[in-house]
Amino acid sequence: MIAVDWGTSSFRAYRLDAAGKVLERREAAAGILTVRDGAFGATLLAQIGDWLGAGESSVVMSGMIGSRQGWKEAPYAFTPAGVDEITKAMITVSFEGQAEVRIAPGVMHRTADGFHDVMRGEETQILGALDTLGAGNHRVCLPGTHSKWAMVQSGRITAFRTHMTGEVFALLRSQSILARTIDPDAAFDEDAFRTGVMRSREGSGLLHHLFEVRSQYLADALTQSASGDYLSGVLIGHELRAEAPDSLVNLLGSSALSDRYATACDALGLPSRRLDPDAVVAGLHRLASLGSTP
Amino acid sequence: MIAVDWGTSSFRAYRLDAAGKVLERREAAAGILTVRDGAFGATLLAQIGDWLGAGESSVVMSGMIGSRQGWKEAPYAFTPAGVDEITKAMITVSFEGQAEVRIAPGVMHRTADGFHDVMRGEETQILGALDTLGAGNHRVCLPGTHSKWAMVQSGRITAFRTHMTGEVFALLRSQSILARTIDPDAAFDEDAFRTGVMRSREGSGLLHHLFEVRSQYLADALTQSASGDYLSGVLIGHELRAEAPDSLVNLLGSSALSDRYATACDALGLPSRRLDPDAVVAGLHRLASLGSTP
Repeated sequence: MIAVDWGTSSFRAYRLDAAGKVLERREAAAGILTVRDGAFGATLLAQIGDWLGAGESSVVMSGMIGSRQGWKEAPYAFTPAGVDEITKAMITVSFEGQAEVRIAPGVMHRTADGFHDVMRGEETQILGALDTLGAGNHRVCLPGTHSKWAMVQSGRITAFRTHMTGEVFALLRSQSILARTIDPDAAFDEDAFRTGVMRSREGSGLLHHLFEVRSQYLADALTQSASGDYLSGVLIGHELRAEAPDSLVNLLGSSALSDRYATACDALGLPSRRLDPDAVVAGLHRLASLGSTP
Repeated sequence: MIAVDWGTSSFRAYRLDAAGKVLERREAAAGILTVRDGAFGATLLAQIGDWLGAGESSVVMSGMIGSRQGWKEAPYAFTPAGVDEITKAMITVSFEGQAEVRIAPGVMHRTADGFHDVMRGEETQILGALDTLGAGNHRVCLPGTHSKWAMVQSGRITAFRTHMTGEVFALLRSQSILARTIDPDAAFDEDAFRTGVMRSREGSGLLHHLFEVRSQYLADALTQSASGDYLSGVLIGHELRAEAPDSLVNLLGSSALSDRYATACDALGLPSRRLDPDAVVAGLHRLASLGSTP
């Protein structure tokens, strides 16, 4: 089978054997935003046509490819959602090539007081980490532009929250008044990052702590090379403050960003561990195995 | 005398009589960012040369004109700062015209744990509001791009905090993923604003509440026309949550923005009142009266 993680800015494909072992992998800057005129089928064919020619006939995809801006909208499955619920909500798209092409849905959570949250792609990563997580209750953090904190109970996602941490960081660092005093090319400054994380514990709020990046610089208490990582620490610290995890934090994501979150957890005395960042492959394999037409 | 409120993007000048009454006023889009090659003297002369020709000989200014990016840096006075401390820290600049031109300093606050905050211009507004405030302890909120919350005790600013609320709102509304689902031309939606304010009381944090602007839209629980004011309410609500005022909130600023803050206070059951938004004129008059060469 072929597993495809197709997001906003990137395209990753994996050719798997029946046991889910990766035989070949490909990555391209062919995220859904780069695809013109809805030519998703042609894009897919260009990327993995040779694998199909070699006999593969099943393609399972997850990520923003199933959003309104993607190939075809795969309506959200609702929490609690595990392999069964997500498999049932998969959709099939028309494809010129000789293969069945399916897309996993995202997941929507609705709180008791009428607020909603959504994920699309992260649910498949979590499914791929279920073997590692095992039975019981777990808290999974997926750092990113929009980081997700999911509660997993006995193999199902029961609730989750998204934090705009990464996007707010990028905007502030490059386009706010803070950009004037941040050296974007500075090497990682762990002390500054940890100081930012700890500042988030003080009670005067994120919007004030953000301005302090400027005022500490004006008072010669923060350098341009330290300001970016201090800001990063403040933001990730506030995310952790809000989540207030009371059990092991399972970090699922790219190593560089997960490193930051692990350091922030360490600064706050919270236990954490890293899950396999390629869990999406196992998740797609799991969906393909359960969900294929008998 | 002539009072000048010279900020980043605007220039406002007032011709006052000896009692501080405004005889004439002028406003120009001649903020310090528009002044090329340090031509501040020429800009001032172009704006108020006729008043000088008519016999005025004292100009007192406040705002970003006294920053590193302005005419000449007026080093910060430290808290606690009242009329005496701020007057003593005023600087004089060289000026071609026949007048003494002075600039009020900003104020810097240093917390016990080594964090700093700065204001430049707001201190003069607060000085102008002292008669209204009277004796005792007061909390003054100056809404803006970078809103300020000051503690005033017996006529002196003893502490203050800045929140990046306005700038974060502008960035998110126009340049984040939230921009896609916000109608920037929508009329003020007070219900949406109040709902956003109340959402800030829930404990999952600002970075999550920001993302909800998107997820509530995706769940058909928020419209494009309501999203902008909902976002505004979330941000102002978090500012108020952090400040947690336990006494009358004195709002000092433009009427439109102060209206929003007053509505947010009302939603949260916090008493507030509006101070004269032109208090900077009285503040500059006060500085000129006390600070002029005998």
